[in-house]
Amino acid sequence: MAVKSIAERLAQKQREISVSEFFERNKHILGFDSLTRALITSVKEGVENSLDAAEEAGILPDLYVELEKLSRNEYKVIIEDNGPGIIKRVVPKIFGKLLYGSRFHSLRQARGAQGIGISAVVMYAQLTTGRPAKIRTKVKEQDVAYEIELMLDTKKNKPQKVRDDFVVWDKEHGTRFEAIVRGRYVSGKQSVYEYLRATAIVNPHARIEYKSPNGEHVIFERATDELPMPTKEIRPHPYGIELGMLMKMAKYTKNIKMVSFLKTEFERISYRVAREICEKAEIPQDMKPKRLNLEQGRAILKAIKKVKIMSPPTDCLSPIGERLIRKGLKNVLGDLKPEFYCPPVTREASVFAGNPFAVEVGIVYGGDIPADQQVEVLRYANRVPLLYHQGGCALTVGLEQVDWRRYGLEQRGGRGLPFGPAIILVHLASTKVPFTSEAKDAVANIALITEEIKRGLMACGRKLRTHLNKRKKRAKTQEKFEIVQKILPEIATKSAGIIHREVPNLDRTITKIMDVIWIDESVEFSKKRHRVTIDVYNYTPTAKKLTLHAIIPNGNLDMDSVNPKPSEVKDSGKVTWTLKRIPSSKKEEISFTLSGLDSDDYDETELYVSGINPKFIIGAEPLPGDWDIEVREFKRLEVDEAPEADETPAEEVDYDEVDEELEEDSYGEQQESEAY
Amino acid sequence: MAVKSIAERLAQKQREISVSEFFERNKHILGFDSLTRALITSVKEGVENSLDAAEEAGILPDLYVELEKLSRNEYKVIIEDNGPGIIKRVVPKIFGKLLYGSRFHSLRQARGAQGIGISAVVMYAQLTTGRPAKIRTKVKEQDVAYEIELMLDTKKNKPQKVRDDFVVWDKEHGTRFEAIVRGRYVSGKQSVYEYLRATAIVNPHARIEYKSPNGEHVIFERATDELPMPTKEIRPHPYGIELGMLMKMAKYTKNIKMVSFLKTEFERISYRVAREICEKAEIPQDMKPKRLNLEQGRAILKAIKKVKIMSPPTDCLSPIGERLIRKGLKNVLGDLKPEFYCPPVTREASVFAGNPFAVEVGIVYGGDIPADQQVEVLRYANRVPLLYHQGGCALTVGLEQVDWRRYGLEQRGGRGLPFGPAIILVHLASTKVPFTSEAKDAVANIALITEEIKRGLMACGRKLRTHLNKRKKRAKTQEKFEIVQKILPEIATKSAGIIHREVPNLDRTITKIMDVIWIDESVEFSKKRHRVTIDVYNYTPTAKKLTLHAIIPNGNLDMDSVNPKPSEVKDSGKVTWTLKRIPSSKKEEISFTLSGLDSDDYDETELYVSGINPKFIIGAEPLPGDWDIEVREFKRLEVDEAPEADETPAEEVDYDEVDEELEEDSYGEQQESEAY
Repeated sequence: MAVKSIAERLAQKQREISVSEFFERNKHILGFDSLTRALITSVKEGVENSLDAAEEAGILPDLYVELEKLSRNEYKVIIEDNGPGIIKRVVPKIFGKLLYGSRFHSLRQARGAQGIGISAVVMYAQLTTGRPAKIRTKVKEQDVAYEIELMLDTKKNKPQKVRDDFVVWDKEHGTRFEAIVRGRYVSGKQSVYEYLRATAIVNPHARIEYKSPNGEHVIFERATDELPMPTKEIRPHPYGIELGMLMKMAKYTKNIKMVSFLKTEFERISYRVAREICEKAEIPQDMKPKRLNLEQGRAILKAIKKVKIMSPPTDCLSPIGERLIRKGLKNVLGDLKPEFYCPPVTREASVFAGNPFAVEVGIVYGGDIPADQQVEVLRYANRVPLLYHQGGCALTVGLEQVDWRRYGLEQRGGRGLPFGPAIILVHLASTKVPFTSEAKDAVANIALITEEIKRGLMACGRKLRTHLNKRKKRAKTQEKFEIVQKILPEIATKSAGIIHREVPNLDRTITKIMDVIWIDESVEFSKKRHRVTIDVYNYTPTAKKLTLHAIIPNGNLDMDSVNPKPSEVKDSGKVTWTLKRIPSSKKEEISFTLSGLDSDDYDETELYVSGINPKFIIGAEPLPGDWDIEVREFKRLEVDEAPEADETPAEEVDYDEVDEELEEDSYGEQQESEAY
Repeated sequence: MAVKSIAERLAQKQREISVSEFFERNKHILGFDSLTRALITSVKEGVENSLDAAEEAGILPDLYVELEKLSRNEYKVIIEDNGPGIIKRVVPKIFGKLLYGSRFHSLRQARGAQGIGISAVVMYAQLTTGRPAKIRTKVKEQDVAYEIELMLDTKKNKPQKVRDDFVVWDKEHGTRFEAIVRGRYVSGKQSVYEYLRATAIVNPHARIEYKSPNGEHVIFERATDELPMPTKEIRPHPYGIELGMLMKMAKYTKNIKMVSFLKTEFERISYRVAREICEKAEIPQDMKPKRLNLEQGRAILKAIKKVKIMSPPTDCLSPIGERLIRKGLKNVLGDLKPEFYCPPVTREASVFAGNPFAVEVGIVYGGDIPADQQVEVLRYANRVPLLYHQGGCALTVGLEQVDWRRYGLEQRGGRGLPFGPAIILVHLASTKVPFTSEAKDAVANIALITEEIKRGLMACGRKLRTHLNKRKKRAKTQEKFEIVQKILPEIATKSAGIIHREVPNLDRTITKIMDVIWIDESVEFSKKRHRVTIDVYNYTPTAKKLTLHAIIPNGNLDMDSVNPKPSEVKDSGKVTWTLKRIPSSKKEEISFTLSGLDSDDYDETELYVSGINPKFIIGAEPLPGDWDIEVREFKRLEVDEAPEADETPAEEVDYDEVDEELEEDSYGEQQESEAY
């Protein structure tokens, strides 16, 4: 009998658990696991919503963030934006209900998509201080703002109005969020300031004003007026669709024919492709999708793999772009006076489990960046900084897989976080960032993603290496040069005086000693134009001819400003000059102007030479692939610095890895993450 | 106008997100982030439910787990138990609805409490293979079993019956779960086998049978018939209660007076205490709780901190216990023939944020355990093995904070995972394990918990060190001994022969050279009894007296078997013999028998000596605190091996740390987890 009573007793205890009660009890899962972090999370959720809203409305975001200390471990959090505002009717649910939102069901790049964030803050506030959250919001065509104080009924997961009202607000449109939470305020790493600073870097189009509890008042000014490219919503891509999902879609579709179902509900499926799939799956094209049975479903998935289908469109993504990353970095890190902003790299978009994603990386080097510690890593997902769980995050893993010793940074054993005066930025943009938890602080360790990050960083690293080499070479020669220039003439004058001869011309001697072609560049910015001057000195004893190539931002070159006339101008932005004859110890000057760029956008030209043995050249790299003998020779010289060639094997290996996974996991499931 | 349309458009897109749709899209959060792991998770959730159910019904668990390969990356998962079975009416929701369960609202130690696990498996199965799960269950007093095939309607988060029926099942009671999932089967670390093996260690009362897809057939036999102590459900403890929670409880309580509300709804609050709280909070004792306003709520929390309140009862916890941990380890790791099972340590229960928790640790050393790699760590929470996220887990963090070099393991810089032939077990038992995500694979980094783990491991480590020292000393002396014993007599006989004298008695010479007191122990098990014999040889040139102390498991000693009669027997299990006079080169024998223990339970006696200079002693430790001069001398001798004394400073520091947090965070929030 004991057993019966048990089975009954257990049955009686079975109960439904409200999602908000669940998270109320597990608030640490949402990023409220410590007082310090709770405060950051509260700000974070508000800021993300504000940025998303403004951008979707095509408005340049203008944010005001304030933390006010009310009592020990109790703070008022204020986030105000100039977004479109929120229609009265949906305000309560947006702030007072977990799992309610506009972006969850749409495949597009957005900061928030879970419908948890901001209402979780409301819940945390009432849990820890018992106080309701206050929201004030105004849409353009209302002359008054709607203001509501609400709480979250965690038993029902429903908003609970405390009071609401219409109030005058001297603001065209926008939303203001206020909550009183238990928290602890800290400065330094993993602080609210740190979070906002990091946010400003990848959102150069946003202006963020911040008042700290200690009364500090920081403003991250807008660095550009360009809004991020608005992202399009896409349908699921047939690759990586799970069988169960297909069955569900077939069951709920409004389409009455299989072909139209496939064409309209999936990305990249034309009628032709749809018919092909049906044929291969041996399913009548006009069959009712609702009739689809499991075996047929499997057949379709198999067929999809056999049919050639374009990879998903990438206009659902809006990467920051190389120019704006650079802008953002300069705008925020300017006071570190870095020696070199490595031209950032934005990788081509690719796909995991049917989700398009693109990786962007940037490196800032030297200046006042501390040299004796591990590099600072700025991790981002969909323009949101990730401050926690650095270790377990795919973005870090990718970075640690690069052998940074090749690119001029210290690294024990060629694995792990490198040491040196550098800040490394990694941004993942995707329609679906696979976060490891609702707190969204780390990305699941998916092979394809770490792979892309690794490639991007290697490309960026090569540019860093080039810069460091150039610098080294220049410095060496400069020294030599100065000595020769100073001492020789003196000796000459002295000795000439002694033997009563006139001072001989030393050019040939000097050039004999130097035996280099010195390429110098200066960039000036005035009247909205960059004036670039390139001097090519021939410090060799003989006349030299060479071909100079400059890579110039497309479309910004004022053609008629170019002097001398280039021998070739490629659409790619490659401009070529053939310098027929530069006499020994003479120089040739090349100049041109660029327009339509901000002062920050341009400070160094990528220069290459061809038609001459690169070993003579200081200040430019040999044009890849050209001047075979010398290039080969050149490579032999530099082999210890592992030129591109050396990296191919590594890359091939990686490819295999990936392919293997594709095969193994049938595209959908490339998510081997035992590692993390 | 653009803006308006936006605000409207955004509003129209706002939608409710079903919790199951949320997790369907974020299945990686539930532990389905890779094919390999998905398979383990599916087994894990089933096994945990089975163990919980059987234990709650007071049944010794008998589990059958089978994986059957159906096609590439497709497996049938079968978990069958002998639990009490499930009442028909609740079956669908338990398996077909997320956030539905019996343990979420009760404060007690249990494996599952979220009400997500098993229904998540059902959801994953239908998502990846489109197949329903099949459940068969029988309660004792039904002669037939109820069988149902169901799916989970993720749009509504509701069970969806495919078919059900009553079937004959030749089983008294129990439940069988079958699901067909996409997964990948691996062996080795982080495999299903690994998970079951780890489960068997901390559940020695369970019998687990396992059939792998490759047809291997493993049985982890039951190592004990003792069920874990059933855990009592407790009410929330006033410490660490959040203001919002208090207000909520006051609002929903059935009590009509403040005092009765406090007394009946919280742990450890008597009427006296309740009245004291009301006084200090200046609240009328008979006030209606529903009337409680925010200020009064705050006042009560303040008052609670000022009033002395017992810490929560710990019968809501059921630690495994030192004896059973040892049993479990031996039962499963036996084939590694470890040289030493460090007596496990179960720490006193303590409290974080109002939740009681207890830490248990054990160390297995030597034998066939690989010596040249990092130690294997077995992490457990409420008897469930944790296989992923080792790095970010509080249990690992605590272990890494111990300076293992003190206890005979290699460790770079005295931090991080040590190297050596050891397996370290860490178990956290709590009414609320703060997992970092729903996948329950890591514990949030809470200072109080890591602290407890550190202490436990240090205590265990000291025992390891003692063992290693004993072994070293013995080995050295043994060697010396054998040489002396062999060579001296030969020399003596030879020389005696030459000078025609009879062979002299060498005892004095030998003892002069040895000058030690050698304590040897042998333990035999026969007729359900352990017979222990302790020989004390005096290999010093003079007669010696000493006091020998043995620590013997309480209540197992057959008093009249003890010979010679002890001079003292403490309840603590400390038995003392005063050995008045052992002549040089003679031995004293001590023997006794223990009953009521299994053969495995006892294999070495903790021996201490006093009343003699410990430097003479081989095979026992000096009784702590005794024989001051010698002990001090002894400490000086061993100072490099950092005896207990050396650890105090470290511990004091930790105390401060903790206290600081108490102060800082007002008991409730000791959750500084920036680290992880």
